[in-house]
Amino acid sequence: MTEVEVKKAPESLQDRLGQVIDLLQRQRVVEDLTHRQEGHHHDLVENLVHRQNLVELQRKLDDLHPADIAYILEALPLDDRLTVWQLVRSERDGDILLEVSDAVRQTLIADMDDHELLAAAKEMDADELADLAPELPRDVVHELMETLDGQQRERVRSALSYDEEQVGALMDFEMVTIREDVSLEVVLRYLRRLKELPGHTDKLFVVDHDGILKGVLPIKRLLVNDPEKQVADVMATDPVSFHPDEDAYDAAQAFERYDLVSAPVVDKSDRLIGRLTIDEMVDLIREESESEVLNMAGLREEEDIFASVWRSLRNRWAWLAINLVTAFLASRVIGLFEGSIEKLVALAALMPIVAGIGGNSGNQTITMIVRAMALDQVSPGNTARLMRKELAVSLINGLVWGGVIGVVAFWLYGSWSLGLVMTAAMTLNLLLAALMGVLIPMTLVRLGRDPAMGASVMITAVTDSGGFFIFLGLATLFLL
Amino acid sequence: MTEVEVKKAPESLQDRLGQVIDLLQRQRVVEDLTHRQEGHHHDLVENLVHRQNLVELQRKLDDLHPADIAYILEALPLDDRLTVWQLVRSERDGDILLEVSDAVRQTLIADMDDHELLAAAKEMDADELADLAPELPRDVVHELMETLDGQQRERVRSALSYDEEQVGALMDFEMVTIREDVSLEVVLRYLRRLKELPGHTDKLFVVDHDGILKGVLPIKRLLVNDPEKQVADVMATDPVSFHPDEDAYDAAQAFERYDLVSAPVVDKSDRLIGRLTIDEMVDLIREESESEVLNMAGLREEEDIFASVWRSLRNRWAWLAINLVTAFLASRVIGLFEGSIEKLVALAALMPIVAGIGGNSGNQTITMIVRAMALDQVSPGNTARLMRKELAVSLINGLVWGGVIGVVAFWLYGSWSLGLVMTAAMTLNLLLAALMGVLIPMTLVRLGRDPAMGASVMITAVTDSGGFFIFLGLATLFLL
Repeated sequence: MTEVEVKKAPESLQDRLGQVIDLLQRQRVVEDLTHRQEGHHHDLVENLVHRQNLVELQRKLDDLHPADIAYILEALPLDDRLTVWQLVRSERDGDILLEVSDAVRQTLIADMDDHELLAAAKEMDADELADLAPELPRDVVHELMETLDGQQRERVRSALSYDEEQVGALMDFEMVTIREDVSLEVVLRYLRRLKELPGHTDKLFVVDHDGILKGVLPIKRLLVNDPEKQVADVMATDPVSFHPDEDAYDAAQAFERYDLVSAPVVDKSDRLIGRLTIDEMVDLIREESESEVLNMAGLREEEDIFASVWRSLRNRWAWLAINLVTAFLASRVIGLFEGSIEKLVALAALMPIVAGIGGNSGNQTITMIVRAMALDQVSPGNTARLMRKELAVSLINGLVWGGVIGVVAFWLYGSWSLGLVMTAAMTLNLLLAALMGVLIPMTLVRLGRDPAMGASVMITAVTDSGGFFIFLGLATLFLL
Repeated sequence: MTEVEVKKAPESLQDRLGQVIDLLQRQRVVEDLTHRQEGHHHDLVENLVHRQNLVELQRKLDDLHPADIAYILEALPLDDRLTVWQLVRSERDGDILLEVSDAVRQTLIADMDDHELLAAAKEMDADELADLAPELPRDVVHELMETLDGQQRERVRSALSYDEEQVGALMDFEMVTIREDVSLEVVLRYLRRLKELPGHTDKLFVVDHDGILKGVLPIKRLLVNDPEKQVADVMATDPVSFHPDEDAYDAAQAFERYDLVSAPVVDKSDRLIGRLTIDEMVDLIREESESEVLNMAGLREEEDIFASVWRSLRNRWAWLAINLVTAFLASRVIGLFEGSIEKLVALAALMPIVAGIGGNSGNQTITMIVRAMALDQVSPGNTARLMRKELAVSLINGLVWGGVIGVVAFWLYGSWSLGLVMTAAMTLNLLLAALMGVLIPMTLVRLGRDPAMGASVMITAVTDSGGFFIFLGLATLFLL
């Protein structure tokens, strides 16, 4: 996508969404009226108002940046979303499709016929096509591939051959390449002959006649150095570069760490095959953080907020079902001690405190660890230390807050021994929470899974069953 | 910070951390030996090994990018961290201090004397100084300000006058400005006279003699257009710009949306006063997502994983204490029904299932909503729809999973009415979870708070107390 000038200040985005919603609501009122008074002489007037509203809305949309329209589409329920989508000029369809989330994109594509899809896709670069292709109908993809030249088709195929999470799937092919044995003056003249430079061009790629990457020439250096100098004398010879099969998130972290704007992608023999740009990396960083949040809560994938009820159900059922099993297990643990509860009903009232605080504390620990793992800060060399620290924090929390709640238990039920059991159970359950808060994400990683995956559901399962068992077990041993 | 060439591929970052930890461990073994054999003739030999290790470690560190050293410092426990810190060449101290997180920075600064701090700070730009100043000892800041010229001092003061979350605190002052009535040729010659261009210079700022921003000249346009052309004919006249008192996170979203690399910051009369760059925005996007995760789990602020136990305790106590109160309330709800539990002890075993599933489902809803709010997708116009959808999802989940667990309850305890109460209680608690999952973050925002703040703790509190009340209440009404 080429750089577009944006008229409004960014803070008015919510306002703009508000305006669109307003227009849509007016629209709906008019449609309601038209419907009710069908056949009446009002028809003509209503139709006029109807059309005026649509024209106003369309004018508003024409003024907006594709990214802003994408944002508005995301925030609208399905029917309104499609109304707006039909008002967008078709030549902008492609840009907008590339901006919206996967979930919303599916709803938009479902609303387009093959002809519209082909028109939207025709303007796209190879990497953008590859982005979109998996969601397009098979015959549209086939027809699209026919219209491409050999190199483009090869590029789309190559991009499609990589996993979504690999560098190869995110790279684009808009590299400006130069030779090392020319002067900067020649480079400047060469650039002037190009109609325009690709977005995010902060460096030119220096390759030899086999396409092997020899270095990069930052635009900054091109501009401040004497035009008489040779590229070879000015270029950076050892730039950060990536391989197409590398993990894209690692690349994003490297962009963040080294403050990169673009970087070359090379194959095993150092041949330049593409480039990565910061805009893709920013999207990735955001998506990664989001999926961390969602995963911890046991949501499988991105779900747009106006997803259908059925879609939402599918997204949430897996972990709810797991939770049902773990809750059932916790219930069976209590079942083991029904005899004790019958004798001392206070146990039933106090047991959720032990389980609840354990769950909260365990969630704190697991959140810390998952975050540290996402930042690559946990290594075998420091695991033991980390564990000791978490256990120490839990021990103190257990003694302090367990002590408080022990006193409260004494005050409520008048039994010192009940209070002591409460304090001991709290402390033990917090230690269990710390232990599992460290071990669960580490085990998930060792199994090749995402450490955030359902972390919250799992730690709560452990602290519930564990908490009930510890508390009721101690009570049965010492109080009955 | 100027661009530095990085030798190693980014994937070896964990390896490098491993190497440093190895060297540190060898170091520690040697220190142990030296300590135990003090006064022996081994001393000399040990000292030699000791020094060799340190030299090797220092050489390794000298090869690394400041961002990589920062990463290693983050991942090391305090004592190792300080060992490494002392080995870093003092001229790199400044760059590294700017890269590490606030929590780690405090530990490093605490280890430096005034002289070292002054030396590290001398190399910094005004915006970097302002970043660091709040954590420096007061007399160091005072001495630093003395050494600055008038303009620099003014800039540091200005940056310090803004809140951490405002654009003014994140902008830098490295703008290259040009006039609109000169030719591109003149601009190119002007740039060549500069030693180097600031990082992330993808556009030059066009200002009049009063410093009023007239437009921006993207470097891309400078390079492809005829050098004879005037700046005024080529520049973009209506660029995205920001005000210093705007919310920095809104600016970061604009950078993401419009794929910006840099953008001007102007005051109320459109005078250019600074610029924002994508690297700061990326850091902000990451921090914002992180604080969302941490806040939901009830962690107050960033806590580095090797923070002292005491620091960790302070970070976690606030929400644990709140959780203690809510758990106590839930316990009191059960206390109300002790008579019922005494009569039918199965209630004690079944009640955590109702509460647990409610908590899980509520966490899913609240996570979705908090995320949508962070992306500005929730507006008064769509709240009602959102609520209806969440309630529909919960109703179906309640009937389906509640039905399953109702059958299980019948199978365990042989009572159809108990099973029915179970199903009804599950459904009602899931509806409550959906309702509060939407209302809690919305209320927090209306109160001017972060919607993620302790969201998980609060929703769990509601679904626990609510679940116990609904289940035990229904049971008391219909079973006893």
